[in-house]
Amino acid sequence: MIKTINNTENNLKRKFEKILGEENVLTSKEDCIMYATDSTAVSTDLYLPDYILFPENTEQISEIMKIAYENSVPVTVRGAGTNMTGACVPFKGGIILSINKMNKILDFDKLNQTIKVQTGVIVGDLQNIVEKEGLFYPPDPSNLKVSTIGGSLALSSSGSRAFKYGGTKDYVLDLTVVLSTGEIIKTGSNTIKNATGFNLTQLFIGSEGTLGVITEATFRLIPKPEETNLILVYFDKIENAANAINGIILNKIVSSVLDIMDKVTMETIEKFSPCGLLTDNEAALFIELDGNKTVINKEIKQIIEICEEFNATKHKTAKTEEEKANLWKARRSAFAAVTQLRPNVLSEDMVVPRSKMPEMIKKTYEIGEKYNLDISIVGHAGDGNFHPHIAFDMRDIQETERVNGAVKELFLKAIELGGKISGEHGIGAVKAKYLKYSVDPFTLKYMKEIKKLFDPKNIMNPQKVFDYEIK
Amino acid sequence: MIKTINNTENNLKRKFEKILGEENVLTSKEDCIMYATDSTAVSTDLYLPDYILFPENTEQISEIMKIAYENSVPVTVRGAGTNMTGACVPFKGGIILSINKMNKILDFDKLNQTIKVQTGVIVGDLQNIVEKEGLFYPPDPSNLKVSTIGGSLALSSSGSRAFKYGGTKDYVLDLTVVLSTGEIIKTGSNTIKNATGFNLTQLFIGSEGTLGVITEATFRLIPKPEETNLILVYFDKIENAANAINGIILNKIVSSVLDIMDKVTMETIEKFSPCGLLTDNEAALFIELDGNKTVINKEIKQIIEICEEFNATKHKTAKTEEEKANLWKARRSAFAAVTQLRPNVLSEDMVVPRSKMPEMIKKTYEIGEKYNLDISIVGHAGDGNFHPHIAFDMRDIQETERVNGAVKELFLKAIELGGKISGEHGIGAVKAKYLKYSVDPFTLKYMKEIKKLFDPKNIMNPQKVFDYEIK
Repeated sequence: MIKTINNTENNLKRKFEKILGEENVLTSKEDCIMYATDSTAVSTDLYLPDYILFPENTEQISEIMKIAYENSVPVTVRGAGTNMTGACVPFKGGIILSINKMNKILDFDKLNQTIKVQTGVIVGDLQNIVEKEGLFYPPDPSNLKVSTIGGSLALSSSGSRAFKYGGTKDYVLDLTVVLSTGEIIKTGSNTIKNATGFNLTQLFIGSEGTLGVITEATFRLIPKPEETNLILVYFDKIENAANAINGIILNKIVSSVLDIMDKVTMETIEKFSPCGLLTDNEAALFIELDGNKTVINKEIKQIIEICEEFNATKHKTAKTEEEKANLWKARRSAFAAVTQLRPNVLSEDMVVPRSKMPEMIKKTYEIGEKYNLDISIVGHAGDGNFHPHIAFDMRDIQETERVNGAVKELFLKAIELGGKISGEHGIGAVKAKYLKYSVDPFTLKYMKEIKKLFDPKNIMNPQKVFDYEIK
Repeated sequence: MIKTINNTENNLKRKFEKILGEENVLTSKEDCIMYATDSTAVSTDLYLPDYILFPENTEQISEIMKIAYENSVPVTVRGAGTNMTGACVPFKGGIILSINKMNKILDFDKLNQTIKVQTGVIVGDLQNIVEKEGLFYPPDPSNLKVSTIGGSLALSSSGSRAFKYGGTKDYVLDLTVVLSTGEIIKTGSNTIKNATGFNLTQLFIGSEGTLGVITEATFRLIPKPEETNLILVYFDKIENAANAINGIILNKIVSSVLDIMDKVTMETIEKFSPCGLLTDNEAALFIELDGNKTVINKEIKQIIEICEEFNATKHKTAKTEEEKANLWKARRSAFAAVTQLRPNVLSEDMVVPRSKMPEMIKKTYEIGEKYNLDISIVGHAGDGNFHPHIAFDMRDIQETERVNGAVKELFLKAIELGGKISGEHGIGAVKAKYLKYSVDPFTLKYMKEIKKLFDPKNIMNPQKVFDYEIK
């Protein structure tokens, strides 16, 4: 069902057109339907925005926010819409504030090894630009070819390389943020160190557009590793793969990537985007090493030895750039492949202390069996970050209920093991009602107070993060 | 002059004794005088606390805070008191809350490579404990043999190794914090990734005890580098040393330490704690490399070549563990040596984009000459973080005024160059009136609102960070 919420008694279209130009203000029903959803299977209903706006700079966003604040119009900021939590769905209508035209590189300082960008810049584009100069921006969300820096910041996203390099939050030096009132604030410093007042930078990172609109950001960069190599190690038992991970970590080897894929994931990739994965195994570890060539070769040898102790069946080291690209294609297409199985896919995201991964994986399959669901697993095993993919049909109410039951059990198990209900996707709409399991009551109370402080009218991405009923 | 502020109409001593035992509550005038100052030359007056308390756990601190809140008694948390900003001086009297008995290791998890501690643990002790297991906690404030984890957290401190490894804030996974009301909150997660709600962890780090008492923290650890080595490179012109730093960075060499010491610093070290430094040079770069031995040796060769391009006069590579220890002793004693020159030393702390270091150094000497002051320079050059040490006599009112004038000019220059007035020491009392130069008005407004939210009665380390008159 299509739901239209009319937020505005007076029509604000002309005001927005005056700020942005007519071409940057969309209001037709067709356009509104296009911007009613994101990558997440949230609801069979469609919640339409009233306006889709395309600002090009911080000042325009400030002007828009002043109008939104005055008229109490909800504002949902949207990058590429690739999030997995319904974070860009405008449940209350109002404005979709697209950052797609906020895509300028503002300053690339090669000596200071920093880059300042508008937040609509694509993550992969930023990586390519800096790598041409021998520099490196490590965070690598799976969808980096389309996803924006703004989305990465809003959801505190990470990726495979976080095991060695940390996530988006670890590279941000400063932010420009437009608040709900239209006030513009500058947080942090473009220097590497800074100890001047409270750290508001990290308060906005991961706040999912609920505290303000992040319009510009400066990132620190590091030198690009001299060399990278990839190794894929197969195991006939998934427990062996999980135990081998702990073996690698106990041996103090820090690979740049230490991911795991299970049998169903490999079979699905082979079905829709064949890469030559050996699907007769229960699991594969996908391991990238980077740095000095001699060191990498030594580490690869060590890793193979460790994996063989845990009964690895086979391994494959990428010999050429083409083979590396092919293996990365396999790893990155894991989610896309699963989406072809059924009408909807829920890509879940939990994190446990890494020593608990074997137990969490075992429990996930038990839960899949109990609820009669197709669950496949991909995970950043080195971090204890773990994505069960559940393929289902949201129109089937009974199956959807089983999915919800399974997800709740998965969350409770992750928490029981000392983990959290999200490692890198955020809370958004779909996990809002579960946040209270992962954050203690007093902490939650102060999070809500901070929300009120920055967004007294609750117009910034309403119904996200905290526990609101979605109807 | 000794100033006693009586905060409490009713005597709270018995209540505190009931919570902590008599031995953990000090109130004698002698004791109060001992806890009236920290490492900073703040004032010739002494501001006495009313109570010095030694709790041993989070629950006791919560009980103390409930009493303090009810009675509006100021609370100044104190670790080793080694800060450089007057952050532990109880200007409003009240409670000195010592964390020195909060010194337990709560959980050292070798497989997950995390350690949970009470915040009174000494930084150097934590390093020693984890290094015995082949793990590594990189942050290294100069005074790490005495300074506490709590102080490091409160002031977001870093150290020499931040160039490669980042500072304290980059290793914290979760915190336990007692708020002014006595409420206990748990921020973050002991997992490497976490995207569940707002990042309150980083809000407390660097908040200088003005938002709450950090009682416990979990840190992530990394494998201890296989090998470290040190090289000292001398230059007869300090500009050449500063330019050589940029040469090293442009060549994408990431040393674990890239520090600079000037002639006066070297002379002073040699005078009070001789280490064989070649004081006929204007500056020395102190460079530590760590990692794989072969890679280190290659990098040392490269660094020497680069430095020679910039007219380095001489270099010395540490050959033995003893030589390494001796060079580190020299580097770490820079501040201690300067304190022997005159009754007081101001260790300033600014940060500029690293490419601006040569200009900042030049200006610092000009300012020293203009105000007729003894300024020596030590800096974490790789980060653009920069410590001018000003030796003076605080009882000499005219000299103290000249120091204040010089500091203000230094701050304004750092800001003009795109920097900040603190890189790692924080704001405390002595820089509070300058914060407005370093943080824009709207950002400052929201920082103050956050302070009000967590500390509505302004009892947590009052008169610090923000602009209050100290009299």
